[in-house]
Amino acid sequence: MPYERDKLIRFHHCDPAGIVFYPQYFVLMNELVEDWFDEGLGHPFGTFHGIERLGLPMAHLECDFLVPSRVGDRLTFRLDVEKLGNASMTLAVTASHGGVVRIRARLVVVLAAMDTGKPVPIAGELRERFERYLVPPAPAA
Amino acid sequence: MPYERDKLIRFHHCDPAGIVFYPQYFVLMNELVEDWFDEGLGHPFGTFHGIERLGLPMAHLECDFLVPSRVGDRLTFRLDVEKLGNASMTLAVTASHGGVVRIRARLVVVLAAMDTGKPVPIAGELRERFERYLVPPAPAA
Amino acid sequence: MPYERDKLIRFHHCDPAGIVFYPQYFVLMNELVEDWFDEGLGHPFGTFHGIERLGLPMAHLECDFLVPSRVGDRLTFRLDVEKLGNASMTLAVTASHGGVVRIRARLVVVLAAMDTGKPVPIAGELRERFERYLVPPAPAA
Amino acid sequence: MPYERDKLIRFHHCDPAGIVFYPQYFVLMNELVEDWFDEGLGHPFGTFHGIERLGLPMAHLECDFLVPSRVGDRLTFRLDVEKLGNASMTLAVTASHGGVVRIRARLVVVLAAMDTGKPVPIAGELRERFERYLVPPAPAA
Repeated sequence: MPYERDKLIRFHHCDPAGIVFYPQYFVLMNELVEDWFDEGLGHPFGTFHGIERLGLPMAHLECDFLVPSRVGDRLTFRLDVEKLGNASMTLAVTASHGGVVRIRARLVVVLAAMDTGKPVPIAGELRERFERYLVPPAPAA
Repeated sequence: MPYERDKLIRFHHCDPAGIVFYPQYFVLMNELVEDWFDEGLGHPFGTFHGIERLGLPMAHLECDFLVPSRVGDRLTFRLDVEKLGNASMTLAVTASHGGVVRIRARLVVVLAAMDTGKPVPIAGELRERFERYLVPPAPAA
Repeated sequence: MPYERDKLIRFHHCDPAGIVFYPQYFVLMNELVEDWFDEGLGHPFGTFHGIERLGLPMAHLECDFLVPSRVGDRLTFRLDVEKLGNASMTLAVTASHGGVVRIRARLVVVLAAMDTGKPVPIAGELRERFERYLVPPAPAA
Repeated sequence: MPYERDKLIRFHHCDPAGIVFYPQYFVLMNELVEDWFDEGLGHPFGTFHGIERLGLPMAHLECDFLVPSRVGDRLTFRLDVEKLGNASMTLAVTASHGGVVRIRARLVVVLAAMDTGKPVPIAGELRERFERYLVPPAPAA
């Protein structure tokens, strides 16, 4: 089960070529993860950040930019958990418009303590919540 | 021969964990490419952008975030051309501090007309300038 | 009649002190004006920008930053038109939380053609739509 | 004696109209204040921020946007201290090109502890350093 959320492309996302300045896609994906906590995982991001003092710094990122987007485009972002490790997880994110994938990314994030930057094991209730979005491994051929 | 340029980490690059918010590394790499045009290639970015109406939109990106950076850190960015295609090229970028690589990225950019978004062959004087930064292929074992 | 819209403070809005980095309030106000076009004025911002090729560059701005905001705060933005000139208008914007005003701004924007930057008279249907949000002048004492 | 520093307008500062997206001027002014600490005040911003754990949050801001700027423009920023209060100060900032003022701002910032947000009196060596940039009051007519 993926998490899905629409995001509107804003004037401030776009560059002099009239298309999204690519680092802004990562800002939108950061918003997507916050929305996922609030709406998908049922573990509010404000609590995760402000009370539990946890974060999800980026360790590795790959992204294909397939079709440009412009002001007023409404993109459907989709997020799956591809791999759930001890203290890290791999998220697959796409952004589509009219059924056409425009952006395809794979993000490896680490669960870390905000105040020390140290990795924290993904355990208990939080692990269970992430697991609901885990994509089953492809069957052997 | 790589192009090298120091970049200072600013307050506005950093997040509530006190470290660079990762999309800001891509903003810095975008600055790096502009500096490379101005100082390395000897083909001012202002001319490339404003008069020739060309751009270098991102097609594919991979990045490892190895060590976090903080306000006041001065990172040495290094850029090599790994591959020079017909209308695209692959740039290898690292950002280091005290000899330790903190960020390692590979960027595939396309030469494109700003007003149409269409790819443009990398030819003539511009191709020659890019070639100076082309890393020779690794010798066969 | 003011236009009102809630906005969520995101991780990417905040700085190493854990509070909104102030230029981000202006990014949020820019979003607010787009929302106002879409939801309040009934004149979609995508049309205004992409088809009519119009924009609202800033001419003058004043802002009081009264109370800081943090990740997860939901601010209620409110917009009134204080003055409707020939080609410019004055917008009064506040952002509040729990009934307390945290940000109070006055923005003077100009209606301008995107491609030339020249001012354009605010006329016809667009003027009528803006007028609905015009605050009546204070009665003489 | 004002502090002066050139700043290059980058692709990432500009919007689909091809001119600087106005919140980016405030990002540049934030850089200017950091440069002033490093080069003008001789009190490195990295120390001020990272070791002394101090900051300069914005309390009030006024800005006139007189002439737009584009990618490749090199603006000369100038900073004066107009007023030095107990825990706050008023900075006058302009950005010029070819002798023409394009941006004129007045910023009221507060000296504050990063970790509590509380105001801190501007005293001792730091006050003396700020005083060197204090503009003498205009003589009575």
